[in-house]
Amino acid sequence: MPMESGGADGARFVWPVRVYFEDTDAGGVVYHANFLRFMERARTEWLRQCGLEQDDLRSSAGVVFVVRSAQLELKRPARFNDLLSVTCRPNPPGRASMDFMQSVYRDDLELASARIRLACVDLDRFVPVAIPARVLNAIEAKQGE
Amino acid sequence: MPMESGGADGARFVWPVRVYFEDTDAGGVVYHANFLRFMERARTEWLRQCGLEQDDLRSSAGVVFVVRSAQLELKRPARFNDLLSVTCRPNPPGRASMDFMQSVYRDDLELASARIRLACVDLDRFVPVAIPARVLNAIEAKQGE
Amino acid sequence: MPMESGGADGARFVWPVRVYFEDTDAGGVVYHANFLRFMERARTEWLRQCGLEQDDLRSSAGVVFVVRSAQLELKRPARFNDLLSVTCRPNPPGRASMDFMQSVYRDDLELASARIRLACVDLDRFVPVAIPARVLNAIEAKQGE
Amino acid sequence: MPMESGGADGARFVWPVRVYFEDTDAGGVVYHANFLRFMERARTEWLRQCGLEQDDLRSSAGVVFVVRSAQLELKRPARFNDLLSVTCRPNPPGRASMDFMQSVYRDDLELASARIRLACVDLDRFVPVAIPARVLNAIEAKQGE
Repeated sequence: MPMESGGADGARFVWPVRVYFEDTDAGGVVYHANFLRFMERARTEWLRQCGLEQDDLRSSAGVVFVVRSAQLELKRPARFNDLLSVTCRPNPPGRASMDFMQSVYRDDLELASARIRLACVDLDRFVPVAIPARVLNAIEAKQGE
Repeated sequence: MPMESGGADGARFVWPVRVYFEDTDAGGVVYHANFLRFMERARTEWLRQCGLEQDDLRSSAGVVFVVRSAQLELKRPARFNDLLSVTCRPNPPGRASMDFMQSVYRDDLELASARIRLACVDLDRFVPVAIPARVLNAIEAKQGE
Repeated sequence: MPMESGGADGARFVWPVRVYFEDTDAGGVVYHANFLRFMERARTEWLRQCGLEQDDLRSSAGVVFVVRSAQLELKRPARFNDLLSVTCRPNPPGRASMDFMQSVYRDDLELASARIRLACVDLDRFVPVAIPARVLNAIEAKQGE
Repeated sequence: MPMESGGADGARFVWPVRVYFEDTDAGGVVYHANFLRFMERARTEWLRQCGLEQDDLRSSAGVVFVVRSAQLELKRPARFNDLLSVTCRPNPPGRASMDFMQSVYRDDLELASARIRLACVDLDRFVPVAIPARVLNAIEAKQGE
């Protein structure tokens, strides 16, 4: 069961997202692509909890994480004013990429899930590069908590 | 090779999309979730070429097509000012859902691809319902051209 | 000086907004139109603090508040990862419309400001109608705190 | 009366915009902030007709145009599937800024209008700088057609 507010739950991280009008479409529900936005917010906050700020990674290490693939399942609609819980469970990182299993809940009801692969790329050329050691260390330390 | 403007190419449909600032992010490239927007524009225009207007489907048949799943691969970045070609190749419809194979090109270079499943749902309850016969007929007629 | 978290400050209400990649553009800054999104989030939360839920207003009173005009000044850029404070100071409501003075701060620095006029409209016809008495009462009660 | 497709009409420029689901909200209409997106598309295309590409301005002149202010009036709703015409009438440029009068029409009906001020800023420091001479020349040549 997701927590109602941001925080770590063992290997699972949960981030709250409120649905505003900007997130919905004329079907009366959250526009499908916006679930990817909600999931990225949770990944950004998970990285922050690991002590990793993406603007710092960019300026100090010259790398950026980009979405390489997403397998998105949309099971039930989310609506204006819903308070959602977005989970973020990372798999152990590979050399240059990293997978996250994520879900979006309203109370105990799973509305959407996705497997998101991030690639670590060179800032200028957008080609894959190894994830910096300090990033791997920070993630490992976080996972071991 | 994609066409430079909207139109039908045998079983393939191509829709042009220009990248504006609104589509990009601080990484200097198109924000990943926006590829799903571009693909929906092409599906909307493909439906229109079949003679199907979604607002009419809604008011006359009480159904709406919603994205049920998306397997999205992002291969290369798109950038501000790029003129993209979005393809749309539908699989034969099922009873209550329909799959589209879509790609985004810049010239001959494939930047992204996705398999998108649409479900036909009842407007009020958002539960799956059979695709109306006139929709199936319109799609079949289009595919047989 | 804005508060760092949501809450009421006399006649002023402040809501925190974190800048994610989705909010930025290839210029490296928050896309200009997204300041209007941030301001709407603060207005939505201000209404919630007044005990007014917009989905309930819609279903029970058949009205919706729409933006009728916006005078937006963008003074300094906001960037990825910024933690912003969005203020919301309502003027006394008119019969069918209501003005909000809003600003966006990073720490003590004002990045943007706007005067936003909301009109109360009939849900179906989108024509102006009088703000329901219970809305006026809830706002008056909140202002008098 | 706006033209139905992009092109120049004396001092007026018109760009067509189709409304997709991504542009709408749960109120069933175009989300208010998205009118600013539509207007920027028209300005981008107007600059392109002047022979000015913003990515080139950025790399060759080190400047970028940013929105400094917007006075936006929203008169009537736009809806899913509407084919809109966005006009763009520039005022004579100042030293470091430039005003555009813009409107959004559906057929002959004006849905929205705005006065948008763009500032020419240095790419790195985001401080105002003089509009480059070749930009002024290109705009003047276009206006004199």
